[in-house]
Amino acid sequence: MKKPNLLKETKQILIRFSEVDSMNIVWHGSYVQYFEDAREAFGRKYGLTYQNYFDNGFYAPLVDMQFEFKNPLQYGDTARIEIEYIPVKAAKVIFKYQIFREKDNALAATGSTTQVFLDSDYKLVLYSPDFYTEWKKRHHVI
Amino acid sequence: MKKPNLLKETKQILIRFSEVDSMNIVWHGSYVQYFEDAREAFGRKYGLTYQNYFDNGFYAPLVDMQFEFKNPLQYGDTARIEIEYIPVKAAKVIFKYQIFREKDNALAATGSTTQVFLDSDYKLVLYSPDFYTEWKKRHHVI
Amino acid sequence: MKKPNLLKETKQILIRFSEVDSMNIVWHGSYVQYFEDAREAFGRKYGLTYQNYFDNGFYAPLVDMQFEFKNPLQYGDTARIEIEYIPVKAAKVIFKYQIFREKDNALAATGSTTQVFLDSDYKLVLYSPDFYTEWKKRHHVI
Amino acid sequence: MKKPNLLKETKQILIRFSEVDSMNIVWHGSYVQYFEDAREAFGRKYGLTYQNYFDNGFYAPLVDMQFEFKNPLQYGDTARIEIEYIPVKAAKVIFKYQIFREKDNALAATGSTTQVFLDSDYKLVLYSPDFYTEWKKRHHVI
Repeated sequence: MKKPNLLKETKQILIRFSEVDSMNIVWHGSYVQYFEDAREAFGRKYGLTYQNYFDNGFYAPLVDMQFEFKNPLQYGDTARIEIEYIPVKAAKVIFKYQIFREKDNALAATGSTTQVFLDSDYKLVLYSPDFYTEWKKRHHVI
Repeated sequence: MKKPNLLKETKQILIRFSEVDSMNIVWHGSYVQYFEDAREAFGRKYGLTYQNYFDNGFYAPLVDMQFEFKNPLQYGDTARIEIEYIPVKAAKVIFKYQIFREKDNALAATGSTTQVFLDSDYKLVLYSPDFYTEWKKRHHVI
Repeated sequence: MKKPNLLKETKQILIRFSEVDSMNIVWHGSYVQYFEDAREAFGRKYGLTYQNYFDNGFYAPLVDMQFEFKNPLQYGDTARIEIEYIPVKAAKVIFKYQIFREKDNALAATGSTTQVFLDSDYKLVLYSPDFYTEWKKRHHVI
Repeated sequence: MKKPNLLKETKQILIRFSEVDSMNIVWHGSYVQYFEDAREAFGRKYGLTYQNYFDNGFYAPLVDMQFEFKNPLQYGDTARIEIEYIPVKAAKVIFKYQIFREKDNALAATGSTTQVFLDSDYKLVLYSPDFYTEWKKRHHVI
């Protein structure tokens, strides 16, 4: 039996002036956008962006997000975000993230996000939508 | 003949940690939110919030915004935003703003915004919508 | 033996237009600011803001933040953030948060944050700084 | 006599989900970041970023910013920001901006920013700092 694929993407970002606080390090809130940037880069690679959810008649809001901060990022730093899709049977989309500081390859942050599906009336979808089941099959993640 | 009313509102805000940049002063982009906070406070007082526009079937996006920065605001400062409605005959909503630093009453920033009306198909509305003409009459600004 | 005090604060916020995304619900990233607003309100009540940390020669960056989203908030909603200080022996500052949607008292989100102390050279402080130990004693949380 | 150089840079951006409001168009406040992204791209090309200012002992905060919005940008759109340096004799750094929607080359927004120099004590610098005069000569903009 074949093992499921590990779907991954890497996204490089340049830390902006406005993302840094008066401690001269990236404000913790900026990492939410970094995760979303990586998630959308993953989505463009594999067909799983917010737009793809909309086009199939669904919303996919976050129900859980977690961040651990290990080493600070500073204005002008280049960071590398590695995102990995975590396969689950439930009607959920789960990602894990690692952010590295390019100049010394130090781990800057880790975390995860979990999304569920809502239909166009904002009702929670308990079973995996067909398009998502198809997506999983197509990418051999189940 | 009676002069038109001057409609004004004042909004006090406390400068947040996240709004300050590594120069230890408020990042210029944060002022967009300060203006919007004042505009919504004005709108709640006089019935002219984004929600009021929606409820009448319109959007009112900005087509122009201008800022002049005079004196810096810092984390922990209290600022007072004074907003004034500028009456015009066109189908536009124009506001002027002054932001004062409470501790010394120094002028921190001034500016203005201009909004137009779009209908629910995002088409520009060339004539003042009825609800807006009624609003102007009710508040004696024309 | 007296039980330690439970230190709490409540902060009311009005959901802004700019905090809402194209799903018409608050974008998940906005909650980072809601937590920080509550944390600073707590800090002003009990003397534990970012400014208090600075004044004592320390930074207190977040090393962990977690969010669970239960029910959506919308533009115009009033939300009530309840923040509680979680006493620990380590040189950490831990808070738990609950955000309620005022109109129906539904739980909108829960979460937690953990801060550590850095000295003015950005070195991690392994033992509780004196000012923090004093603060704990003064508020009977240990 | 040689005409001064026109210094320009072009920066392409992909409109993010979080930058869009409930009208499904980019929130006006997001354009502040777009201008800053273009300004920093220009700065990396020609040696005039926030970091370059710091390294020479100066801050360069904005004293003026202006935006005109012409056509909306939406989530998923690609936009092209064209930034041009406007030479002046005063100790100021002035840029003009044009943002185009790539799919139809429509003009989305225009605007300008003006920066002044502060020394490390946050005092306004009335005469052009040497490094800036040198920079102007090196790039033949005066």
